Amino acid sequence: MSYLSGLFSTVFERRFARAVSTDAEGRDITDLANDLLGAQGEVSGSTLARLILDQYAKADAERKKAFFEFLLRDLEIDPVEVVETLKDYKASPSKRSYLAYAKASEPKRQELLRRLNQVRGGTQRLVSMRRDLLGMMREDAKLEPLDVDFQHLFASWFNRGFLVLRRINWSSPAEILEKIIAYEAVHAIDSWDDLRLRLQPTDRRCFGFFHPAMPDEPLIFVEVALTQGIPNSVQNLLANGRAPIEAEEADTAVFYSISNCQAGLAGISFGNSLIKQVAADLARDLGALDTFVTLSPIPGLTKWLGKNQSPTVNNASVEAQAAHYLIAAKREDNLPLDPVARFHLGNGAAVHAVHANADISDKGMRQSKGAMVNYLYDLAHVTANHEHFVTEKVVAASPAVHTLSASISSKS
Amino acid sequence: MSYLSGLFSTVFERRFARAVSTDAEGRDITDLANDLLGAQGEVSGSTLARLILDQYAKADAERKKAFFEFLLRDLEIDPVEVVETLKDYKASPSKRSYLAYAKASEPKRQELLRRLNQVRGGTQRLVSMRRDLLGMMREDAKLEPLDVDFQHLFASWFNRGFLVLRRINWSSPAEILEKIIAYEAVHAIDSWDDLRLRLQPTDRRCFGFFHPAMPDEPLIFVEVALTQGIPNSVQNLLANGRAPIEAEEADTAVFYSISNCQAGLAGISFGNSLIKQVAADLARDLGALDTFVTLSPIPGLTKWLGKNQSPTVNNASVEAQAAHYLIAAKREDNLPLDPVARFHLGNGAAVHAVHANADISDKGMRQSKGAMVNYLYDLAHVTANHEHFVTEKVVAASPAVHTLSASISSKS
Amino acid sequence: MSYLSGLFSTVFERRFARAVSTDAEGRDITDLANDLLGAQGEVSGSTLARLILDQYAKADAERKKAFFEFLLRDLEIDPVEVVETLKDYKASPSKRSYLAYAKASEPKRQELLRRLNQVRGGTQRLVSMRRDLLGMMREDAKLEPLDVDFQHLFASWFNRGFLVLRRINWSSPAEILEKIIAYEAVHAIDSWDDLRLRLQPTDRRCFGFFHPAMPDEPLIFVEVALTQGIPNSVQNLLANGRAPIEAEEADTAVFYSISNCQAGLAGISFGNSLIKQVAADLARDLGALDTFVTLSPIPGLTKWLGKNQSPTVNNASVEAQAAHYLIAAKREDNLPLDPVARFHLGNGAAVHAVHANADISDKGMRQSKGAMVNYLYDLAHVTANHEHFVTEKVVAASPAVHTLSASISSKS
Amino acid sequence: MSYLSGLFSTVFERRFARAVSTDAEGRDITDLANDLLGAQGEVSGSTLARLILDQYAKADAERKKAFFEFLLRDLEIDPVEVVETLKDYKASPSKRSYLAYAKASEPKRQELLRRLNQVRGGTQRLVSMRRDLLGMMREDAKLEPLDVDFQHLFASWFNRGFLVLRRINWSSPAEILEKIIAYEAVHAIDSWDDLRLRLQPTDRRCFGFFHPAMPDEPLIFVEVALTQGIPNSVQNLLANGRAPIEAEEADTAVFYSISNCQAGLAGISFGNSLIKQVAADLARDLGALDTFVTLSPIPGLTKWLGKNQSPTVNNASVEAQAAHYLIAAKREDNLPLDPVARFHLGNGAAVHAVHANADISDKGMRQSKGAMVNYLYDLAHVTANHEHFVTEKVVAASPAVHTLSASISSKS
Repeated sequence: MSYLSGLFSTVFERRFARAVSTDAEGRDITDLANDLLGAQGEVSGSTLARLILDQYAKADAERKKAFFEFLLRDLEIDPVEVVETLKDYKASPSKRSYLAYAKASEPKRQELLRRLNQVRGGTQRLVSMRRDLLGMMREDAKLEPLDVDFQHLFASWFNRGFLVLRRINWSSPAEILEKIIAYEAVHAIDSWDDLRLRLQPTDRRCFGFFHPAMPDEPLIFVEVALTQGIPNSVQNLLANGRAPIEAEEADTAVFYSISNCQAGLAGISFGNSLIKQVAADLARDLGALDTFVTLSPIPGLTKWLGKNQSPTVNNASVEAQAAHYLIAAKREDNLPLDPVARFHLGNGAAVHAVHANADISDKGMRQSKGAMVNYLYDLAHVTANHEHFVTEKVVAASPAVHTLSASISSKS
Repeated sequence: MSYLSGLFSTVFERRFARAVSTDAEGRDITDLANDLLGAQGEVSGSTLARLILDQYAKADAERKKAFFEFLLRDLEIDPVEVVETLKDYKASPSKRSYLAYAKASEPKRQELLRRLNQVRGGTQRLVSMRRDLLGMMREDAKLEPLDVDFQHLFASWFNRGFLVLRRINWSSPAEILEKIIAYEAVHAIDSWDDLRLRLQPTDRRCFGFFHPAMPDEPLIFVEVALTQGIPNSVQNLLANGRAPIEAEEADTAVFYSISNCQAGLAGISFGNSLIKQVAADLARDLGALDTFVTLSPIPGLTKWLGKNQSPTVNNASVEAQAAHYLIAAKREDNLPLDPVARFHLGNGAAVHAVHANADISDKGMRQSKGAMVNYLYDLAHVTANHEHFVTEKVVAASPAVHTLSASISSKS
Repeated sequence: MSYLSGLFSTVFERRFARAVSTDAEGRDITDLANDLLGAQGEVSGSTLARLILDQYAKADAERKKAFFEFLLRDLEIDPVEVVETLKDYKASPSKRSYLAYAKASEPKRQELLRRLNQVRGGTQRLVSMRRDLLGMMREDAKLEPLDVDFQHLFASWFNRGFLVLRRINWSSPAEILEKIIAYEAVHAIDSWDDLRLRLQPTDRRCFGFFHPAMPDEPLIFVEVALTQGIPNSVQNLLANGRAPIEAEEADTAVFYSISNCQAGLAGISFGNSLIKQVAADLARDLGALDTFVTLSPIPGLTKWLGKNQSPTVNNASVEAQAAHYLIAAKREDNLPLDPVARFHLGNGAAVHAVHANADISDKGMRQSKGAMVNYLYDLAHVTANHEHFVTEKVVAASPAVHTLSASISSKS
Repeated sequence: MSYLSGLFSTVFERRFARAVSTDAEGRDITDLANDLLGAQGEVSGSTLARLILDQYAKADAERKKAFFEFLLRDLEIDPVEVVETLKDYKASPSKRSYLAYAKASEPKRQELLRRLNQVRGGTQRLVSMRRDLLGMMREDAKLEPLDVDFQHLFASWFNRGFLVLRRINWSSPAEILEKIIAYEAVHAIDSWDDLRLRLQPTDRRCFGFFHPAMPDEPLIFVEVALTQGIPNSVQNLLANGRAPIEAEEADTAVFYSISNCQAGLAGISFGNSLIKQVAADLARDLGALDTFVTLSPIPGLTKWLGKNQSPTVNNASVEAQAAHYLIAAKREDNLPLDPVARFHLGNGAAVHAVHANADISDKGMRQSKGAMVNYLYDLAHVTANHEHFVTEKVVAASPAVHTLSASISSKS
């Protein structure tokens, strides 16, 4: 791809662009990166950025890793400079002295990543770059500090204020819908016909967050069923051939699947915002809705039961086991063992009810003996629940669930 | 405005929201800011952010200044912590140690500004906040370091990769167009009829950059005339009653006005990108275009002549004076004295021609004795011009302009 | 404009198109029309249509009239053929015999107008053509039958089912808004600032009907004020500097101005549909609205008073005069004398209240001594009101208005 | 569905609507139709129209047929009135007399259909109604005259000037795309993956005509392949795994499939306009394109060979057979026997080349022994070709095809 060819796409322009590109093509990616940081102004900036991203895209794993190591090593902070500019700034605070400190205290690689982002499509390519990095980090922990920089920038760029909530339905572009099929992580979508059953009936909704710089890529999406009463079986909820109800007749919105779409955005949290925004929008449009609830898997139950051989636990009903696991099984940091529980409780939801035979698929039987759980989003209590959970690690739960759990605890 | 009321806008929701809002309302803005930084998760985060922005909006100048001082003083870095975490990180680099350093080295106010940005409309309100700050800085230089943080965040958020180029024409929304009238900084637009003359004729174009989080607010816009040959008079160019040509017949695109729209984004540079993107788009759509040029004011000429009493200069023609001023009149840092010249030369353009009687309006006669200048954007030379300008402070100019300028220099 | 040049707009195509166009250009418009009717298939059809419309556009009044006379005379039905094909069809009804009759019974000019409409932009040009015709008809009644054909086609093309209701607000394109300024027929809009006062406040709405083939041309629009209670003065309603209310607080929607935009669509009625659709949409979005009412001029009052010299009438209050005029003053066909009254009563509205000093502008004082009237659209009664009005010529009115009117009648 | 419930959809409105609807519900459809024709003004008009369309939708075949018979019999012209009003009009032509004739000469059912069309969604329901009619006509020819009225109205409503050309690609809504799968009539699309191969590659295009009143329903669509040179095999053209070329590199646009979508619009011709509009748009966007050609089936070849037992024909090559069939095999009216040939030749295309083994699918082998044909759209000749074809029944063909055909003719 020739120099400037993305930006200046006419024959006319390419003629001129060719002149300036010759010495840039074929150069080493780290060389180009140094140039990009040095380049004053944007003139050659966006072209260099494009060249770097193109070279990165074509690189094999080894060269990618070399690039990451270059970022870590060569574009690192200079501790001496940090300390000196800091001293200077504290001694005589001014725009000049603070600017010097700010520049020194942040590694140059952050500025490099920001400059790479000025290219059209750059954001998405940087998200892919981090996905590569996360993969390599599993084998080489030395790369981890670099991820701190990525995460810092992404948290700023993918700020809630920049995200756009869009409804996804049967009128959505096929290129979005095929990603919904691909990314659905909770209850797999087998085909376009299956997808249609999640989107088209009057009592189904789907919403996703999008970033304006990646308009064709959902970041996260949630699937919602509108029901009368709280459901206790995902197979019933999704049954082929069931009779849909009118949306206006529903009193309950069930968030039955939430899926993250971008591996490269791991750790950038959208789920909490998404659920609350969707709940608010649904409540505004459908006046009869008064209950917002999930129907969630309990991915760690079977595994925990396997480790926990106490007879009181083993002989209890699945519901009691599930209730007890969700309320009482904790990690070292005293937060719940179950990852889905941590997510919803962290959002301020409460464990509302547990159900046996709620997911009788292979996966459901395997991970939780068929049990599922409703987490309740009661807007009057989410803030308080959240505060208690975060500060005191208290798991909010309904009396019924507490009783179920206690039926085991009292004996054990 | 009650707690959560922006987010949860139905009667149903307000009932719940009221419960949680009571202790938040009426609290001090700095108190809320501390809470927002402390709040784990987003549950109360976006509500707190909204409350803070609302309180700020209602505050008078004194309270606003107090808030800025709070940001500077209370949300400052802790030098001891910076040094300790830095030492720790260098001693044993890891995700944990680097994260600690990264957190310590950046003042907490940056995180606060990021969290304020998660509210819908937050970006625009932060841009307004910086406009206030810039105003107060003029009287109190102690506030200046705070602006370094704003500028750092805005440079990241208003990255070229996030901006959207939109054509502005007579089909654009009135709410956009009234801002074009208001923000036009070079050749004032007197009325909607006057605006129509800038937008509707077949040989006129206008383009602006927009940010997705501020969709109704142009950040910068450029007005373009499509002509045959390079024009030498802005009054002729904008003459009422002139006969427009077909766009396809034009060989020259004249950028005759570039205006920044957001005082709160001062120092975040868009103009260079805008001109190049517009040139590229026009070249793609209109095959006969082969010259991209400005018709620019010379705002500092008269003032400089007033200070420069050498007879050679005083007796020269206006064209010679203008050419000499643009090429030879320098600041202490050896860059051109003229701000418009610095902008276009910094973009890689060249001084192409100077014209007497080119702007005979009061403003034109006053600031430059009626002289104007064409800066030429020759895509084959912008990169080289730019590099020479930035590194060696060389002003690129056509032979004709050099000759004109030399007619004075040789004598003086 | 060369043959095919509208449809085939590239250089490549024009080369070919030139070959076929030479014998078409410069030919007489009636000649081309005959060809267009004869041309089988669409190949040369759309090109011929364009040529005809172009030639028509350039024609002077005399040639336009000649074209209309050609349509009337040369593209007339053949009575003999009508009778014969009719006889044939009734004798042996079949697709063939009915098709022959259908073709014979309709003048060829209708088919010509349909074929002219196949060109992009054709609809609008035919609407303009009828505007010309309506003008010429005033001086030459012989042209009137031709208008029957136009009206027949337009009623079919501008069927309610094809119209699109669009909100017009301060985000609408300037090119639409300038037409609102131009077409406002009831209370003139003086400037863009004045327009903004009709569109931007929270308690103002404006809606128009558009046809998909004329997307930039409103056909009719209505301006609405959202109020608490029914207003009795248009100056108060539109007062500069008044404090707007929140839309959600309004209990009343006031249709204070309805304007037709296209002279060429005279007699094609949109107003009734527009009011009802807007009322339905507002009621859906704003739950507190329960009253839909106009604040209307009484254009014929002064004139009628001038002709009616009975002392009882002359000495009555303006309100009584207005009430009496609206209820009792009739045309020969026993419908109300007042044209605005005929429109709203024909839609099923009722005369709800009359007000003195309600329009104290020059126009208001002149046409109705400052009086105005509220017509009430009560959805529970519009159908019955309409039926009574149409079949029995009964004017629906509130008891108060009846009493006012009777205060005169009883004496006269 | 209750009276007014479509139009007035809020609880508030339904309360009122109920009052007026009681006597309308449950009434006979023909009764309602008489009311709709009688109803003056639009007040009850759109409600009646909705009721009729709802009742029609629920009716069984017998009741539908009864409705059609009602239209034919009861809403028929009155021959006496036609003759009398005609006589009157010719005796003294005036608006009044012509209006009376126009009304009498057109059966009332046309006005009924127009009034049914004023309901939102009415157009589509009338298209479905005609589909029913076409089905019933096959068994009962007496219904055929009714179709003349439908066709007359549809030709006016689906005029080329009202249609919108839209590109269909992988960003199109799924609800449109599923219709492309369903309606593809030439080369079946097996799955969504198969569809993607027709839409997503850089060298594929698909365009459809839409009517604004049926925005989710394509009327007709064409699939285009961009190639270098004219293709001679549809299997190669659509081969899975082939390497796409860049659109800009193509010199040929191949229309390889054209499908009508609406059975109820049979006989309303869109194909010619579609091909020419698409050719014009492609030529404008892709400068290197200079050949527009089809790759078309020859559906009647095998059947014709079966009937034609002359040894010269039977022993010729498939190409010669195909060429001869296309040029020389005629219907009674002297037009080509092959329906696809009639379509393209009627559009002004020419038989350009015939290919053996061009469609080796079961269908291709069965209908034409694997042969296919390229029809060439040479814009310089389409008009002349069309005229010769229509007036003199001349089949335009390339010399090569003529030679092939003659190799048989000369012997037979």
